[in-house]
Amino acid sequence: MTPTHTSQLLALEPAAQDLLFREARTANVFTPEPVGDDQVRAIYELVKYAPTSMNQQPMRVVLLRSHGARRELLGHLARGNRAKVAAAPLVALLAADLRFHETLPEVFPHLPGAKDLFADAAVRRESALFNTALQVAYLIVGIRAAGLAAGPIVGYDADAINKAFFGDGSREIVTVVNIGHPAPGTGHPRLPRLAFEDVVSTV
Amino acid sequence: MTPTHTSQLLALEPAAQDLLFREARTANVFTPEPVGDDQVRAIYELVKYAPTSMNQQPMRVVLLRSHGARRELLGHLARGNRAKVAAAPLVALLAADLRFHETLPEVFPHLPGAKDLFADAAVRRESALFNTALQVAYLIVGIRAAGLAAGPIVGYDADAINKAFFGDGSREIVTVVNIGHPAPGTGHPRLPRLAFEDVVSTV
Repeated sequence: MTPTHTSQLLALEPAAQDLLFREARTANVFTPEPVGDDQVRAIYELVKYAPTSMNQQPMRVVLLRSHGARRELLGHLARGNRAKVAAAPLVALLAADLRFHETLPEVFPHLPGAKDLFADAAVRRESALFNTALQVAYLIVGIRAAGLAAGPIVGYDADAINKAFFGDGSREIVTVVNIGHPAPGTGHPRLPRLAFEDVVSTV
Repeated sequence: MTPTHTSQLLALEPAAQDLLFREARTANVFTPEPVGDDQVRAIYELVKYAPTSMNQQPMRVVLLRSHGARRELLGHLARGNRAKVAAAPLVALLAADLRFHETLPEVFPHLPGAKDLFADAAVRRESALFNTALQVAYLIVGIRAAGLAAGPIVGYDADAINKAFFGDGSREIVTVVNIGHPAPGTGHPRLPRLAFEDVVSTV
């Protein structure tokens, strides 16, 4: 099956398929053009509608706009990640809110006992991490929907970042993401993807 | 800021924003129209390009096409989920491949030691679950891109499903998802989403 035939089976128009998936790339180098709060808000107001288990919505986003906050983060990154984070137009911490269950009475009101299902801290953390990961993926799609590129990073000292930015233990970093307009011509060749037959089976 | 202004800040055209996020809804009731393997392939061939950490791509999909497989699953679901899974046009198990690291030499070839970073089973499982969750989210977006609706379900006996479908312990179920054309007029009112100010902060 050719890509052309594949894309025609989808309701989403091909230009949007390209924007979000086929032509979008993880970026390490960006143009100096800034990313405004209005763009971040537009992205959130779109991707907030994507689903999470029991509407948990545990992802929290911290935009590092100050020089001090950016410098604090740089000290906790793996050496190979520092230059690209230092130069990115916008850097955000994406974290899991380990107290997400406290909002369940408002966001999942038809199950009054929902909050109590997450009384156990280990159960709560596993659910927070899973649903935050869903929301990280939606956010990456949303960043691309804004015509921007995301550069997620996981090489850092998570404990140090948690202590520096979430000192009360209520949140846990899951990824750092650079956001901006990708600099032309700086992309690596795309890494190989697994074949359909290696991923999807039928029983 | 009105929704109209927000959507105009995005590069993705408003109809695509609606299809993927604003008008898309989790579905519990579907029309009888089948979902073909060609549609599943088109969805995968689109969403496979979305990023995972170190290109891990740990998500595996099992389509339950046989009567026996569907019946086996039904016995492991929470009672309240059985009817909707029994009636869905297509049911898929989404699982994390706990041996994803074995493919890193092919999918992340520029770091020869990548596989060894995941020698520890607990580290490997946490990474597999996180990156599978990213891919579950991309897949949900892809299902919507195909003009279909997804109905993810987490109320089930995970150990029983793992034993029945992944008896060798190499995979772990993360969600069951119903896929099909949503039946008109069967949706619930959308649950409340957290406000931008409650999710995004700046330092």
